[in-house]
Amino acid sequence: MQKISHYHSAFVSYLEENIQSKEPASLYDPILYILGLGGKRLRPILTLMTAEAFSDWYKNALDAALSVEIFHNFSLIHDDIMDTAPLRRGQPTVHEKWDVNTGILSGDAMLILAYQLFERYDANTFQDLAKLFSRTALQVCEGQQYDMDFETREDVSVAEYLKMIEFKTAVLVGAAMKMGAIVASASKEDQNYIYEFGRLLGIAFQLQDDYLDAFGDPKTFGKQVGGDIIENKKTFLFIKALEFSNEDDRLELQHLFGITPSDPSDKIETVKQIFQTSGSADATRKEIENYTKKAFTVLDKLSIPENKKEALKIFGDDLMNRRV
Amino acid sequence: MQKISHYHSAFVSYLEENIQSKEPASLYDPILYILGLGGKRLRPILTLMTAEAFSDWYKNALDAALSVEIFHNFSLIHDDIMDTAPLRRGQPTVHEKWDVNTGILSGDAMLILAYQLFERYDANTFQDLAKLFSRTALQVCEGQQYDMDFETREDVSVAEYLKMIEFKTAVLVGAAMKMGAIVASASKEDQNYIYEFGRLLGIAFQLQDDYLDAFGDPKTFGKQVGGDIIENKKTFLFIKALEFSNEDDRLELQHLFGITPSDPSDKIETVKQIFQTSGSADATRKEIENYTKKAFTVLDKLSIPENKKEALKIFGDDLMNRRV
Repeated sequence: MQKISHYHSAFVSYLEENIQSKEPASLYDPILYILGLGGKRLRPILTLMTAEAFSDWYKNALDAALSVEIFHNFSLIHDDIMDTAPLRRGQPTVHEKWDVNTGILSGDAMLILAYQLFERYDANTFQDLAKLFSRTALQVCEGQQYDMDFETREDVSVAEYLKMIEFKTAVLVGAAMKMGAIVASASKEDQNYIYEFGRLLGIAFQLQDDYLDAFGDPKTFGKQVGGDIIENKKTFLFIKALEFSNEDDRLELQHLFGITPSDPSDKIETVKQIFQTSGSADATRKEIENYTKKAFTVLDKLSIPENKKEALKIFGDDLMNRRV
Repeated sequence: MQKISHYHSAFVSYLEENIQSKEPASLYDPILYILGLGGKRLRPILTLMTAEAFSDWYKNALDAALSVEIFHNFSLIHDDIMDTAPLRRGQPTVHEKWDVNTGILSGDAMLILAYQLFERYDANTFQDLAKLFSRTALQVCEGQQYDMDFETREDVSVAEYLKMIEFKTAVLVGAAMKMGAIVASASKEDQNYIYEFGRLLGIAFQLQDDYLDAFGDPKTFGKQVGGDIIENKKTFLFIKALEFSNEDDRLELQHLFGITPSDPSDKIETVKQIFQTSGSADATRKEIENYTKKAFTVLDKLSIPENKKEALKIFGDDLMNRRV
């Protein structure tokens, strides 16, 4: 197995070689722009790592990895329009830099380009990849829809919330890895195990993202700490706090998640206290640990050498400890 | 070969059986809504007819036909957002009935569903269909982008305009027919001829749409006569009129296409006169005839029985005479 930085630079070179602007520039320039904004490239790296874990040869997986990254960035463009987000990775979003119509159409083109990247594989591999991709992409759309639906609902359950983050975030992590396994001709069992590993790790990662949004270190957490609280987002922490709180705290929490004060520092402080005292913070940490452990347990079932399992485990550890 | 009405009702039954609402309803209900608005279902009927022309068995092409119709309706939803169109087939557009976010996300889901419909075919057919679909879908996006770019350009050439309508409209007609040929295991030559037939007929059809928009009979033309003139759309008629006109008429035409009077009747009348006197109307009719003839010439090359070529020719004739 290679170092993460090796996969990263191999992927970025491949992206730059294969995605170039063409006419009409007004359609393709925004695609180059969003793909050039950088980011950790976690999903495509996972595709490459998985291919190498099963075949000692990751380069055959570069097209699949690029497809995953293009799909992910398609979903960012369209989600940013829906969320009216001004910034993405610290730069103007596509609909801000151009306009909403450009964001819609360039996004559509990216979704199609993602499918086209499977065309260099033989017919059976192509069908396996495209089927997995379609099922996953549809789940990502459903996850985004649930997320929007939840904004106006007061009764979102923990199960519903977990399904939402599974669809919106985790299935693409599972699919990214399974694509690497498909390209590497892994057995169906191994393909499904590695999907499960990615899916569980993806849920753990998203729950941790929710947790760090409230309790992370502003110096190391990439986003604004307290951002979810400011935006009244009903994350796992919030749902669990409602469940565990006494009547007074519940009313207080519901009140605070109905207002948007110009200086949010008091609100953030109070909400964080309720998250702690209610036991929600503990429960969230425990849930993160559960999903992470479950993910690592799945690794044991894979029919690959121990050192490769270990490499995947180290990557998972680094991911959960935000070292990658 | 069956009657058109037979293909139509077989298709609509198949659509109703296979596209049903599910959770999240906020994602899938708009899909049912737009697919239920009706329309002539020309593209899927062409897929079914073509399959039967090559194999005497159209039912195997129902999934491909449904894919084409779903893709077409995806493009309508997103185009209607971009054009801020309030009505589609006389009913509120999706973004009017729901909102823009719903239109974006339900459209995205439809693009994915269109690919999923190929999954019931064997791996080679699947790859052939999906490759053709991706290439076509990307061209449709490029066509829509050119169309939007042309709104703010004064120097659109005839060649550019023809490429735009080819991409935005005609390639999907060609692809709809080629999909029927692929499913029916037609030879590669026949697949390409039937694509060419559809593409040329599609260009003829769109040019005729431009022509009828100005000179059609309000009783039989489905849309508001003069609509393109009211919206200052630079159609074939307009570009040719600019090319052919004397200085005075050109300036008049450019002036009229820069204003939007509350009562447009005088403007429409003057523009139509310039279209006539400049020779643009004649040139457009001639171009329509050229493309129609070229399309029919391609039919001769097909290796299918004469009576089936005749059936395709009759359909083409009916289409150009707006009898279907």
